[in-house]
Amino acid sequence: MTEQQAFRPGLDGVIASATNISYLDVDHEQIVIRGYDLIELARTVRYVDVVGLLLDGKLPDKEEADKLEDDLRAAGELPEAVLQLLQLETNHYNAMDMLRTGISSLAGFEEELDDRSREANRRKTIRLLAKIPSIIAGGYRIQSGQPLIMPDRNLSYSANFLYMLTGKVPNEHQERAFDQSLIVYSEHEMPNSTFVARVIASTQADLYGAVTGAVASLKGTLHGGANEAVMKMLLEAQTIDKLEPLLLGKLANKERIMGFGHRVYMKKMDPRAMLMKEALHSLSELGGNDELYRMCDLGERIMHREKGLYPNLDYYAAPVYYLLGIPIDLYTPIFLAARTAGLGAHVIEQHENNRLFRPRVHYMGPRGLTPKSGI
Amino acid sequence: MTEQQAFRPGLDGVIASATNISYLDVDHEQIVIRGYDLIELARTVRYVDVVGLLLDGKLPDKEEADKLEDDLRAAGELPEAVLQLLQLETNHYNAMDMLRTGISSLAGFEEELDDRSREANRRKTIRLLAKIPSIIAGGYRIQSGQPLIMPDRNLSYSANFLYMLTGKVPNEHQERAFDQSLIVYSEHEMPNSTFVARVIASTQADLYGAVTGAVASLKGTLHGGANEAVMKMLLEAQTIDKLEPLLLGKLANKERIMGFGHRVYMKKMDPRAMLMKEALHSLSELGGNDELYRMCDLGERIMHREKGLYPNLDYYAAPVYYLLGIPIDLYTPIFLAARTAGLGAHVIEQHENNRLFRPRVHYMGPRGLTPKSGI
Repeated sequence: MTEQQAFRPGLDGVIASATNISYLDVDHEQIVIRGYDLIELARTVRYVDVVGLLLDGKLPDKEEADKLEDDLRAAGELPEAVLQLLQLETNHYNAMDMLRTGISSLAGFEEELDDRSREANRRKTIRLLAKIPSIIAGGYRIQSGQPLIMPDRNLSYSANFLYMLTGKVPNEHQERAFDQSLIVYSEHEMPNSTFVARVIASTQADLYGAVTGAVASLKGTLHGGANEAVMKMLLEAQTIDKLEPLLLGKLANKERIMGFGHRVYMKKMDPRAMLMKEALHSLSELGGNDELYRMCDLGERIMHREKGLYPNLDYYAAPVYYLLGIPIDLYTPIFLAARTAGLGAHVIEQHENNRLFRPRVHYMGPRGLTPKSGI
Repeated sequence: MTEQQAFRPGLDGVIASATNISYLDVDHEQIVIRGYDLIELARTVRYVDVVGLLLDGKLPDKEEADKLEDDLRAAGELPEAVLQLLQLETNHYNAMDMLRTGISSLAGFEEELDDRSREANRRKTIRLLAKIPSIIAGGYRIQSGQPLIMPDRNLSYSANFLYMLTGKVPNEHQERAFDQSLIVYSEHEMPNSTFVARVIASTQADLYGAVTGAVASLKGTLHGGANEAVMKMLLEAQTIDKLEPLLLGKLANKERIMGFGHRVYMKKMDPRAMLMKEALHSLSELGGNDELYRMCDLGERIMHREKGLYPNLDYYAAPVYYLLGIPIDLYTPIFLAARTAGLGAHVIEQHENNRLFRPRVHYMGPRGLTPKSGI
């Protein structure tokens, strides 16, 4: 046994992994992805390029990106048994529960399941990225009694994903806003869900198990569930004039307002939120109605005035998804879909240089008790 | 951001949680469970008593234990949709994949899914404990073309579990050996799978998600997969006279021999392994054939002589399960079933005094790169 360190609840400030993938440079307000600024990536390349960057460590050239997009298009359809699974009647449908079950079930169709080489993990990540939109959109449409939409191989990855979610082929502005949201959700150092994926992978468990665990984590209201909570709060306010009384009432009741603050950013604004705020502004202007944009902007100012808090990504991604016509239940699953690129990169890295995660505890319970025989 | 600590790969020696549940006291060679010695518990009480101890912090009296056993008996049947799920055809059946998918799918039938109170988490753990044997045994029997066995409410929890696994009602010696194995697998401080469950639960995610993540972790060959690997190695040897050449050959090829050593125990023998060695001896004598026992004992002596390693629990649990007639594919799922009691206790504790797990990284990648526009 090694010497033990002081207990830090939540592993706050503890270094869990060495990584070449990403880093939150809080001092410079920069999210570093393989050496690039995430926001700069979102302004200059597409999600598919970022997938290549995350998995291969370098931005793909045009030919490589086209190949990657083709691979994603080719693998979008689900095995028949997984389509049947999406149709099983549950007592209460939850899109994250279904996504977790669906991804877990895909393991039974993965021929390279037990191959933990970089190349196999890369191929498996591509196949998962291709199939996750089909699970999310298919499960939702089946459970809400709507006809299934099959993937359209003529569309880009992002346009097809949005088409399957809404039933409408997006215009280029809508596709671009959605693609940017996927980029800013794609990777973010070591949040709870990425940590879960690496801890699971460290037992030499497979990629599907690692991503299944990440879905379970992301479902939590302190993690991925926040973007849905933001939209429900905005809809609860209904109009811009009712937002301030609603927020002040919630704050007076000591209710947590979702979409603000972040463990790592602390007192600075999440740069991803700024980018999504721009996207929201553009979509609002194109739609000819900027009330949702103005509501969000007002909410941002109220929360800064009252609590000194800044919005995080979820706060501005939620209204973008709303204007794109995406069902609210699917915001967190989309976060997971986008993040699968980062999760795949982390599983590759963990399997390539593995050490089993096995921490210790600080035991505070009793000692020296003796049981009476109960047999 | 808090001050950062030195990087410890695998969080070796890092304190991840404060807990009242259990502690590996390496210096005194004792596994402490709520103040009791785990081995003493296994000699004096039943698995159901240990479930009560783990969940409630004290050993149940006779009446409480009977109530707990009744609750377990009452909740064993699976929802129709989960039975259908077990029948979906996959390309390659794996019992841990199916258990992960099955537990994940049960969330859709849990009325108290979002209630994170101690009482609700306790009730959910009981329901999961009741249903997991049905998933493990049912999934295996369906996928191997055998008729389904429904739970027998006249049997104890352990006898029914073993009956569903083998199709035969066990005698009292078989039931006792199996019950003891469930006790020694029930809880073990902070192994990877328990850590995964707590990290997931810390997002306020639900018990089903946390246990699903633990299944994913336990599937890994560096964790729960070891008990199956042990049995395959013993069967590979076939007879006692071929064991030594097999082991020496594997060691010469630098193959890892499963079932030996443990991150925390290091140079001492796992006390759980000693108890299971006794159970193996008893079962061998009752069966009138002690070759498997003698093989295991020989393997233990060879590994100590050659590598200075001691057997861990998996090394002696595997042959016990073999003599009980349990299919080898189900050894790791049984480990998870037994551990669900401990996992439930840890999720209760995490939800009662929560802090989101969110560590940091040591970034070793490039900086300052600029993307060329690819849009």
